[in-house]
Amino acid sequence: MSDTVVVGLDVGGTSTRAAAVDLDGVRLGTGHAGGGNPTSHGAERAAGELLTALRAALAEVDPTRVRAGVIGLAGAGRLLADPRGRDAFDQAWTAAGLRCPYTVHGDALVAYASGTAAPDGTVLIAGTGAIAAQVRDLRLDRTADGHGWLLGDAGSGFWLGREAVRSLLTDLDRAVAPGALARQVLAELTGSTEVAARPRATAAAVVQAVTRRPPVDLARLAPLVVTAARQGEPAAVALVTEAAALLAESIWRIRPPDATDPVVLGGGLLTGDTPLAGAVRAELAARWPDAPLAGAGDGAAAAAWLAARDLPEVIDPAALHARLVPPPT
Amino acid sequence: MSDTVVVGLDVGGTSTRAAAVDLDGVRLGTGHAGGGNPTSHGAERAAGELLTALRAALAEVDPTRVRAGVIGLAGAGRLLADPRGRDAFDQAWTAAGLRCPYTVHGDALVAYASGTAAPDGTVLIAGTGAIAAQVRDLRLDRTADGHGWLLGDAGSGFWLGREAVRSLLTDLDRAVAPGALARQVLAELTGSTEVAARPRATAAAVVQAVTRRPPVDLARLAPLVVTAARQGEPAAVALVTEAAALLAESIWRIRPPDATDPVVLGGGLLTGDTPLAGAVRAELAARWPDAPLAGAGDGAAAAAWLAARDLPEVIDPAALHARLVPPPT
Repeated sequence: MSDTVVVGLDVGGTSTRAAAVDLDGVRLGTGHAGGGNPTSHGAERAAGELLTALRAALAEVDPTRVRAGVIGLAGAGRLLADPRGRDAFDQAWTAAGLRCPYTVHGDALVAYASGTAAPDGTVLIAGTGAIAAQVRDLRLDRTADGHGWLLGDAGSGFWLGREAVRSLLTDLDRAVAPGALARQVLAELTGSTEVAARPRATAAAVVQAVTRRPPVDLARLAPLVVTAARQGEPAAVALVTEAAALLAESIWRIRPPDATDPVVLGGGLLTGDTPLAGAVRAELAARWPDAPLAGAGDGAAAAAWLAARDLPEVIDPAALHARLVPPPT
Repeated sequence: MSDTVVVGLDVGGTSTRAAAVDLDGVRLGTGHAGGGNPTSHGAERAAGELLTALRAALAEVDPTRVRAGVIGLAGAGRLLADPRGRDAFDQAWTAAGLRCPYTVHGDALVAYASGTAAPDGTVLIAGTGAIAAQVRDLRLDRTADGHGWLLGDAGSGFWLGREAVRSLLTDLDRAVAPGALARQVLAELTGSTEVAARPRATAAAVVQAVTRRPPVDLARLAPLVVTAARQGEPAAVALVTEAAALLAESIWRIRPPDATDPVVLGGGLLTGDTPLAGAVRAELAARWPDAPLAGAGDGAAAAAWLAARDLPEVIDPAALHARLVPPPT
């Protein structure tokens, strides 16, 4: 058994996960901490969460055994461009007792590597936002969308939530009784499914309820759409189908039509057997019938694998991947 | 000649206009002032602009001759719901020397009345935002859209600007050379038509340039789309065509398919011989072939006409309309 240890971190907006593993694929430690995305939380706080997760993962490990580390996080480019952010991460790394260098990658690359060991392929992530990326030799190459809620995120949780409200407003404008999904959206926003005698008074109340909060909060309505689509509610099924087409269109912008390398699906809306994941898989199977489709798995383990595969003693990265990052069940 | 005078005010976000007229349709005075929309500017400031415009219009008129007045403004309902706003307007009215009562109507009704004297019909307004409304007996009845940029305003100036940026971002994602409209949008936002070696760096700069300003400022890009469409630029023509279909769809929500009463087009994007007005006219002619189409004209004169037509001595409101509110040239 090798004495070498690698660590991987998956830093998301709501949680940070760390994994310490040896080169036989044995998990030596795991850490959890709060959201650490430096773009949304500030680099100091992000670095604090990073340190918490690292210390937990290294509780039973001599940190001098750690030879390599990878941190995956959203907005990686911005962190690297900001000396203060880089400093804060360096200090957390050192405070955890680590002497080796570390590499920062975008969360999209880590999501990709959590689904496949193939060096080339495509990753599609749909959560609050949405982005597609081409991966070349396990580096992010071209991306599509990821432009944020105002200008992009087509087919994302924000998009599903906004379109569900727009659909409700259309019912109110037309003075037809809102459908099942629209009634749920109405209740969520106004606390009641009642429509005023003048429906435009209800429409105004809906608009006010939405505009009282940050726009991106519309993503909180996405689970209503997903659940309704699972039950076959027509408006929800239509929105999920349209979202899947938009997500596939984002991939279409960057993935060659004849590509046969894998596509990894990640993010809250595409992880597991969701209606949107099913619709996206159908879109992808129609456009790229020979592409293997995989779901994103354990991001911290994938980050650890990305750290390990460059070490000289790792002869068979794919075999290590199979042990470290098993496909999600 | 009647001794009776009526006043009309058209209170917009960027300007306030007032007209004092007699019942023969003779214009006795005209006033201009700054933006007076109480929603965007606060009721006190709005009332101040109102007073400035009123005083100018009444400079040569004995205010005790004024028998009726109408104020048209966006967000009229909110003004009436707010006692402070109503007070501020009351005080401005009295400070101008007026003793008669006044009525507040939505700007959509005033725009409608500036295009036709018919008591029933439809008005479509597209400027920064977009709204359609049914008019019944010269009162606003049902409305469609007008839900604001986050959830609505389909086919508006905001929509055209946002879609122009989205189209540019799609070109950058696909790594194709931006078209003529996209290059203009790029120059407007980044100060240069240059695309970086990694186009996603340029895409990030575009997104940052947009998100530095309030979202509604995207409407400032609409004139680029309109001008490019006039010159036949394909992406601009496609956007204008889609905007026209969305605006017609808003009308479709509220106007019966067999309606033959008039449709009035107003707002900066539909006033005059613009490409969007042409495309909307074509959509409307296809759906309601027998409906007369009119352009919105002088809002202050239309407001004055709305004030006059309820007076007992006005026997023929349509004849007075023809004198007071001539069709726009």
